[in-house]
Amino acid sequence: MLFDAPLHLQSGASLRAYSLSFETYGRLNSTRSNAVLICHALNASHHVAGTYPGQPNSEGWWDSMIGPGKSVDTDHFFVIGVNNLGSCFGSTGPMHANPDAPTGSGRVYGADFPVVTVEDWVNAQARLLDALGIETLAAVMGGSLGGMQALSWTLQYPSRVRHAVVVASAPNLTAENIAFNEVARRAIVTDPDFHGGHFYEHGTVPKRGLRIARMIGHITYLSDDVMNEKFGRQLRQSIAVEMSEGSDVAGFTRPYKFSTQDVEFQIESYLRYQGDKFAEYFDANTYLLITRALDYFDPARSYGGKLSAALAPASCKFLLVSFTTDWRFSPKRSREIVKALLDNQRDVSYAEIDAPHGHDAFLLDDPRYLAVVRSYFDRIMQSSVVAGAGETP
Amino acid sequence: MLFDAPLHLQSGASLRAYSLSFETYGRLNSTRSNAVLICHALNASHHVAGTYPGQPNSEGWWDSMIGPGKSVDTDHFFVIGVNNLGSCFGSTGPMHANPDAPTGSGRVYGADFPVVTVEDWVNAQARLLDALGIETLAAVMGGSLGGMQALSWTLQYPSRVRHAVVVASAPNLTAENIAFNEVARRAIVTDPDFHGGHFYEHGTVPKRGLRIARMIGHITYLSDDVMNEKFGRQLRQSIAVEMSEGSDVAGFTRPYKFSTQDVEFQIESYLRYQGDKFAEYFDANTYLLITRALDYFDPARSYGGKLSAALAPASCKFLLVSFTTDWRFSPKRSREIVKALLDNQRDVSYAEIDAPHGHDAFLLDDPRYLAVVRSYFDRIMQSSVVAGAGETP
Repeated sequence: MLFDAPLHLQSGASLRAYSLSFETYGRLNSTRSNAVLICHALNASHHVAGTYPGQPNSEGWWDSMIGPGKSVDTDHFFVIGVNNLGSCFGSTGPMHANPDAPTGSGRVYGADFPVVTVEDWVNAQARLLDALGIETLAAVMGGSLGGMQALSWTLQYPSRVRHAVVVASAPNLTAENIAFNEVARRAIVTDPDFHGGHFYEHGTVPKRGLRIARMIGHITYLSDDVMNEKFGRQLRQSIAVEMSEGSDVAGFTRPYKFSTQDVEFQIESYLRYQGDKFAEYFDANTYLLITRALDYFDPARSYGGKLSAALAPASCKFLLVSFTTDWRFSPKRSREIVKALLDNQRDVSYAEIDAPHGHDAFLLDDPRYLAVVRSYFDRIMQSSVVAGAGETP
Repeated sequence: MLFDAPLHLQSGASLRAYSLSFETYGRLNSTRSNAVLICHALNASHHVAGTYPGQPNSEGWWDSMIGPGKSVDTDHFFVIGVNNLGSCFGSTGPMHANPDAPTGSGRVYGADFPVVTVEDWVNAQARLLDALGIETLAAVMGGSLGGMQALSWTLQYPSRVRHAVVVASAPNLTAENIAFNEVARRAIVTDPDFHGGHFYEHGTVPKRGLRIARMIGHITYLSDDVMNEKFGRQLRQSIAVEMSEGSDVAGFTRPYKFSTQDVEFQIESYLRYQGDKFAEYFDANTYLLITRALDYFDPARSYGGKLSAALAPASCKFLLVSFTTDWRFSPKRSREIVKALLDNQRDVSYAEIDAPHGHDAFLLDDPRYLAVVRSYFDRIMQSSVVAGAGETP
């Protein structure tokens, strides 16, 4: 969908015109009271559920959660997935033509795409709802960076949200979170193929940097426990080698290839594969923009670090979910949000799921997790019907 | 010191001749019973204590621990620091001439330096002791990878070690540990200036890769808590910007530069500084070799993963120390070693120090930590005197 009115960004810059890619699932009811907005995290898109015709492997990124009869039941809710500004899956981003470039140059934004924030995304999403004729959301929902957007919705547009579902998220990044983002960005920016962010013109892609960034990301998405369980110290292939006669180490065998550059352990193989795959489809400037939006999000900053004061404008009901082994966005961070909301006497449900999968758990189909969300959406459905009936224009 | 006899390596390769750089502190007693060998970790050297004449900032890397009147008291002990094979601080390594290269080519080893293991280092260290006329060590001591060498000493040369001090170490790396090493190695190997490990001939240094590797390392050396305390979300510089009139976000101010490539947060500045500094002095091939030695160390591997069986040959007394916030080599890993030694009825002291500094704690001067080591070395001193008197040749 194309938007002509300029979008003023938090940085002071503006986007003169922009488009947002989105998908919807289910049907908007007559009272327009059953809309659920899904906000995505780093490398996801507007394609949150279902498959495209003839493409059986094209499941949406939250397909375990969203669909007919699922926890977020599209037989009852009208679900909207939207790709954020600056992303690389259809909405206006660094790979699109820069309207401020010399006429006829056809130059794309590249590194000149303005820095966007969680707040900017929420403003753009609100305009999409305007265009769809949706004044109030039954719920806004997201995990990780998507949870930050859901939280920000309740602060920027408190009257337009009845429920917020914030999964595996945090009120801001820790120094360690920022550190991992920064290393990933440096890997991309210092890749000679990055060309200051204008690699499109050079016909290159900074794949080395993208690979490293993705490998670092994957380490932080998993828990130490699940990594040990899935990969442990397993070798990629066992090598049968005779005992060395010259060896003076008791019990010594040679199971290794003894190489510093070849893949030796399964975990290495896994990470290289993930890095290679990512570098084929993800845009380097998008990676920088989205990790920076993560770094910058910090609603308490304007309130001297007082999260309770920052969350006072929120008036909706909340479900927060965290996962015990998530060390990227630990349960402690979700509890900070819960506490700040309770300080404001808000209606908050909170579930801490004992799952082994680390941060990745929010995308997986843990039955307790899915049941918690299902039961919360059942509650929304009941209250929405009432609210919807009362609010008929 | 030059060694002419070939050293057979665990990989099956051999080093025909090699030299080891070492330093000693204090005096070897007449019974040769007061020697303490210090093993180093990734980026350290044989210079473990004291300063060089006229270089006031040249403290050894464990100067807080070792010296006259310190926990490892060089008024009583003869301390030996040795630089490991493959390192870049004097001992034979990738930057030295490859004797197998065509005569007159002057070609250095580079990536052709053989892969060395913890066991190989210990064998080389044993030869150094032979040359120094030291049959038995009062103690072998190390932190992190150095602790692995100390542990391996007790297995490879059980009769030559009376005490082993193993600090912030582990019986092997976890999948997550290997993963971080692998990302760092990939950053180096995929740097175009690496040239397959023969960058010396091209007059380049893969500094981009070394910087990324060091930044990743630093994140894992610190704890989340100490990072938050030291850096938190502090900006490198505050920017006074007027409230944007166009903003529709309540309480919105613009404290940021809104850049994806500039330093914004203090933690970014710290990491970049550490990366830049490291890339100036550390050898890329050494980085690969030493992280690989870490990956490979796993004494239980030859015993079907049974650490108790693997540690059965050890006959000395042990002190193990771990630090509560060390998530790289967590206390749990030290406790695995303690348990396996107790299964073998070994004499083990264990201290778990409640320090906030993460893995870095082993290099810092926490008074409880230094006191634990001091009291252990007091005990060694008493038993050494007795043992020394009884063992006079």
